[in-house]
Amino acid sequence: MIDEKGILFILSGPSGVGKGTVRKALFEQDTNLKYSISMTTRTKREGGEQEGVDYFYRSHEQFEQMIHEKKMLEYAKYVGNYYGTPRQYVDEMIEKGHDVFLEIEVQGALQVKENFPQGVFIFLIPPSLEELKNRIVERGTETEDLIINRLKEARNEIEMMDKYDYVVVNDNIEDAVRKVQSIVQSEHCKRSRVAKQYKALLEVDDK
Amino acid sequence: MIDEKGILFILSGPSGVGKGTVRKALFEQDTNLKYSISMTTRTKREGGEQEGVDYFYRSHEQFEQMIHEKKMLEYAKYVGNYYGTPRQYVDEMIEKGHDVFLEIEVQGALQVKENFPQGVFIFLIPPSLEELKNRIVERGTETEDLIINRLKEARNEIEMMDKYDYVVVNDNIEDAVRKVQSIVQSEHCKRSRVAKQYKALLEVDDK
Repeated sequence: MIDEKGILFILSGPSGVGKGTVRKALFEQDTNLKYSISMTTRTKREGGEQEGVDYFYRSHEQFEQMIHEKKMLEYAKYVGNYYGTPRQYVDEMIEKGHDVFLEIEVQGALQVKENFPQGVFIFLIPPSLEELKNRIVERGTETEDLIINRLKEARNEIEMMDKYDYVVVNDNIEDAVRKVQSIVQSEHCKRSRVAKQYKALLEVDDK
Repeated sequence: MIDEKGILFILSGPSGVGKGTVRKALFEQDTNLKYSISMTTRTKREGGEQEGVDYFYRSHEQFEQMIHEKKMLEYAKYVGNYYGTPRQYVDEMIEKGHDVFLEIEVQGALQVKENFPQGVFIFLIPPSLEELKNRIVERGTETEDLIINRLKEARNEIEMMDKYDYVVVNDNIEDAVRKVQSIVQSEHCKRSRVAKQYKALLEVDDK
């Protein structure tokens, strides 16, 4: 086999589309992917959150230092705490030949695109905006005003589709997971990734 | 669902690599692909070859007329007869939303690339040249001189890899078939193919 590097896959899409569910179902089947672990300044929750498993836990000063040193692929601040994706873990896994999988909001994905354009960007979309609305309503956690805002935001986010490499419709989980798996597998067959090494391999073993 | 056009997939690679075996195994599993039917000037064989199933049978004059009118995606002459791929069948299937699959020698694939650059070109390679030699030898149909020629040709053809979109190693049939299937599925998720229609869909149903 050739000595191939890993690939960073980014799954994103409007909130409510089911990114988390697709990611979970994917990881139940696929053990070759490494899930990118986020970094945060919030404190560990009681009851067993672990450093390097749930999050990398850092102080505000450490986090801001990493932002300053451009060591974050993306970050955002929610309710006074930073959350983000440290670059080092991704780089290390990829160097070792592991694929890394990142499930993330659209704004975060666009930051990753700036900092890691060689990633493969997958946009998960709802079968329709009506369906997205139903899913948000079914969660039962949002007021009507918030739902309207969410849909407005979703419509804006769908405009961001053009920044992505692939579009997957989440009409059912199994199909969506299968499509993501196909994308992962076919990206490893891309001539632009592998031709040089295969050519070398086929030259060498003839001597 | 969106009204999507089909895609032309071209499987090619050095002779002896196992293109036919992969294609056969693929078609045993996958019924969404249409196999592109070749055109020939040779006569129907006794015992049930059928027009439009095994080949489209045409006279020399008709075939040359089609070449002249640029109605062939590729063609070649063997032992006095023409063989080639008529463009019309491919166009019609794709227009109807069917994927078309073409298994073909490298020289033919390069002609198709000229005439149908929007096709998806998959290059099947042997795990090693040693392995390719073994496969050609095992067929038992070639003299030693011919084997050496075949390998020389294979080495030249491998240089053509750069004209292709994907490279699939045929180390075992199941893996190779699975990879080709992934390529077929993921190509349908390419943002460049589907974004416009999905955007329209997601706009429309909100009105």
